[in-house]
Amino acid sequence: MKSESSPTLRVLLIDDGAHRTGLIRDELARQGCEVVGVIEQATLIHDCVLRLQPDVVIVDSESPTRDTLEHLALLGSRNPRPVVVFSEDDAEDPMRLALKAGVSAYVVAGLQPERLQPVLKVAIARYEQEAELRAQLVDATSQLAQRKTVERAKGLLMKSAGLDEDAAFARLRKLAMDKGLKLHEVAAKVIEAHELLG
Amino acid sequence: MKSESSPTLRVLLIDDGAHRTGLIRDELARQGCEVVGVIEQATLIHDCVLRLQPDVVIVDSESPTRDTLEHLALLGSRNPRPVVVFSEDDAEDPMRLALKAGVSAYVVAGLQPERLQPVLKVAIARYEQEAELRAQLVDATSQLAQRKTVERAKGLLMKSAGLDEDAAFARLRKLAMDKGLKLHEVAAKVIEAHELLG
Repeated sequence: MKSESSPTLRVLLIDDGAHRTGLIRDELARQGCEVVGVIEQATLIHDCVLRLQPDVVIVDSESPTRDTLEHLALLGSRNPRPVVVFSEDDAEDPMRLALKAGVSAYVVAGLQPERLQPVLKVAIARYEQEAELRAQLVDATSQLAQRKTVERAKGLLMKSAGLDEDAAFARLRKLAMDKGLKLHEVAAKVIEAHELLG
Repeated sequence: MKSESSPTLRVLLIDDGAHRTGLIRDELARQGCEVVGVIEQATLIHDCVLRLQPDVVIVDSESPTRDTLEHLALLGSRNPRPVVVFSEDDAEDPMRLALKAGVSAYVVAGLQPERLQPVLKVAIARYEQEAELRAQLVDATSQLAQRKTVERAKGLLMKSAGLDEDAAFARLRKLAMDKGLKLHEVAAKVIEAHELLG
């Protein structure tokens, strides 16, 4: 299954109640993956990811508990990684919560050890695609926020110092250069100062 | 498998070379889904989605061809729907292209008819989540673009009509009201006019 060109995948395995991690570990090894850790508590997921730096995390679950899902969400917000959840439970709530937490593959009642590799590959590709989309969103949102901050600071300078737009902008730019800050950073400081001084 | 509360899923089935649509159709019917159509050519996918308005599309593929992937991308850009691809090929390229085309689930060598329902449910949840993310991105990007347009039009009015910033903004606002346009729409017209007239 493993092609010559793929690098060895480093996998962190989490037994979340389904007790099949032995089987999964053996099969991953057979398929040429490196299992960097097997842990028995989903609450340790974040620490273990930091310490072991896996390429992908597998959570083998009977039915993901709220506690497990919270730890997945924490991981997703702090140190996102491709995560595959195998669950034996087809309920909608845990599934939707898992996807919201950033899980890249949620496989219900479908653990087929012999096809772990393709599941991991799809999860990683999905993860990369979603990360790109999220990065675009963060970029657009922060550009928008920065622009609003600069506009607002410019407006305050125009009013308080009686400057026209060009002059207010030039003032902001000079402040930024003098302080070694970005334009929106110095703009935020100008707004803060105005709020402090009324 | 089907819970009492779920509405009947309307499924469009596409035979893309794996020739298992008969099996899938029977199993979907058994699981309480409504198969709204079975087609033999992925090239018809967009037309059939428009005509039959399925909740979810299943593409049963031996290995998705470039032609099939192009039609999935077309669907994804024009009339996105949750799409599940079953493929017998674990190659990376078609998988990544399929994800890029907006496919919500890409299942390699893993067609298990008895667990079609959960696969469809996860795909639909994934689709909804990604649609939300994309809508946020479109929103942020267009807000940013609109802001830039308004700023640029304001700058042009300040220069060409010798107005200060407030007056230029007031001019834009009045133009928008008079013409029943949004601010950024009238700003785009101002820019266009300046480009035409030099």
